[in-house]
Amino acid sequence: MSEQKGHRPLILISNDDGITAPGLRVLVEEMSHLGEVIVVAPDKPQSAMGHAITVTQPLRLKPSHIFKGIKAFECSGTPADCVKLALDKVCDRRPDIMVSGINHGPNYSINVIYSGTMSAAVEAAVDGVQAIGFSLCDYSMEADFEPCRQHVRHITETILKHPLPYGTLLNVNMPKTEKIKGVKVCRQASAKYAENFDERKDPSGNTYYWMTGKFINLESEDNDTDLWAIEHHYVSIVPTKFDLTSNSVIQHLKQLI
Amino acid sequence: MSEQKGHRPLILISNDDGITAPGLRVLVEEMSHLGEVIVVAPDKPQSAMGHAITVTQPLRLKPSHIFKGIKAFECSGTPADCVKLALDKVCDRRPDIMVSGINHGPNYSINVIYSGTMSAAVEAAVDGVQAIGFSLCDYSMEADFEPCRQHVRHITETILKHPLPYGTLLNVNMPKTEKIKGVKVCRQASAKYAENFDERKDPSGNTYYWMTGKFINLESEDNDTDLWAIEHHYVSIVPTKFDLTSNSVIQHLKQLI
Repeated sequence: MSEQKGHRPLILISNDDGITAPGLRVLVEEMSHLGEVIVVAPDKPQSAMGHAITVTQPLRLKPSHIFKGIKAFECSGTPADCVKLALDKVCDRRPDIMVSGINHGPNYSINVIYSGTMSAAVEAAVDGVQAIGFSLCDYSMEADFEPCRQHVRHITETILKHPLPYGTLLNVNMPKTEKIKGVKVCRQASAKYAENFDERKDPSGNTYYWMTGKFINLESEDNDTDLWAIEHHYVSIVPTKFDLTSNSVIQHLKQLI
Repeated sequence: MSEQKGHRPLILISNDDGITAPGLRVLVEEMSHLGEVIVVAPDKPQSAMGHAITVTQPLRLKPSHIFKGIKAFECSGTPADCVKLALDKVCDRRPDIMVSGINHGPNYSINVIYSGTMSAAVEAAVDGVQAIGFSLCDYSMEADFEPCRQHVRHITETILKHPLPYGTLLNVNMPKTEKIKGVKVCRQASAKYAENFDERKDPSGNTYYWMTGKFINLESEDNDTDLWAIEHHYVSIVPTKFDLTSNSVIQHLKQLI
């Protein structure tokens, strides 16, 4: 990890499914072709953690040997914690890029705000590191990542060559299909979940609730969204930002307040 | 909570400091002047939970009697869980508005992405409910909320009268000061935290890390940011959205991929 090796890009990897997830292994394999890899990933699944960070508890970091020849650590915190800790305590030079995933399950459309995968990438981007979140639209731990490999590599190589402006990162989703038709640069589709909590009784007769939800597409037939791309077997790439200001509402609001 | 009472606005309230937080009480008091109030708040502090939701665990909901004459529940989940559960299981009509807070501590600038307060408000907005997150820039549980009251009420009344377009909500921060100068509609200031994990040894001699960070303002002297407003003793209002697409990068990226 010395500066002398600086000619190979340093690639920081994390995820939210935990260090043993098959999707992470695929990402490590592909990134190893592109540069020197460091992995700091959660020691347990952290899906739907949003951008949670751990401020009231200490964090643990433990070396992991599950990737042969790769410097890797498992961390007791959230995906965002992993990236913060990696940048401060693990990497002895700035990573050229941070990649997150490959998530088992989609992070397109409104899923981006709940996504632990994307929170890791956002965390890196806020710190000024190029960042990409990769997700495969298949929740299975036995998901087939083979069709993803070339796209993951190509998109990462492109960003290494042509860095994004500060304040932006990529949200990449890949369809569950044997034949990916191509790649589309998209906007985030408007959608929401219609909640429907399952109301149950525990063995003591007390009520508890389990979250279930139905994904509701709020879009018309526009073909420029990530949802459209995925449904039509394309890889979707949404350039994503963390400045949440709605500029269009600023003027309107100034007249009211 | 019958439809007959429908002429009074229904106001759903949550927070991330937990149901016993003084800031929540202030919000409940002020909102009671404006409409019928329902509170569903976390049963313990949930700061920095970002937009975490609970999908792998059941949730509990328990009636609370800490607000006299107010229908209130404490929930075992995150702020976003509270709102989801409130909308599905507690409210028997759609709230006219959802307000979150008043947070003990700032949620301006990049804090918005870590904020449990804002995640509750975002959750409501995604579901199509008008929403505002309120924060006082004072972490103390003994913080003085008196100067905030009139602004909280005025801003909420304004949004009840003039609803925001779908996809937007407000992030309101209030300065810690006896004399608030006024209200500014702002953009989110660019900033980040420079992490500096405190490395310690536990009683068994094993290393652990505790997150600390220094807030770094990345802005020049522009006076249109939330950070500027707060530093100059104004209330900042940032119209906030959850479509994270960076439209300016879409065209650029299409040429590269």
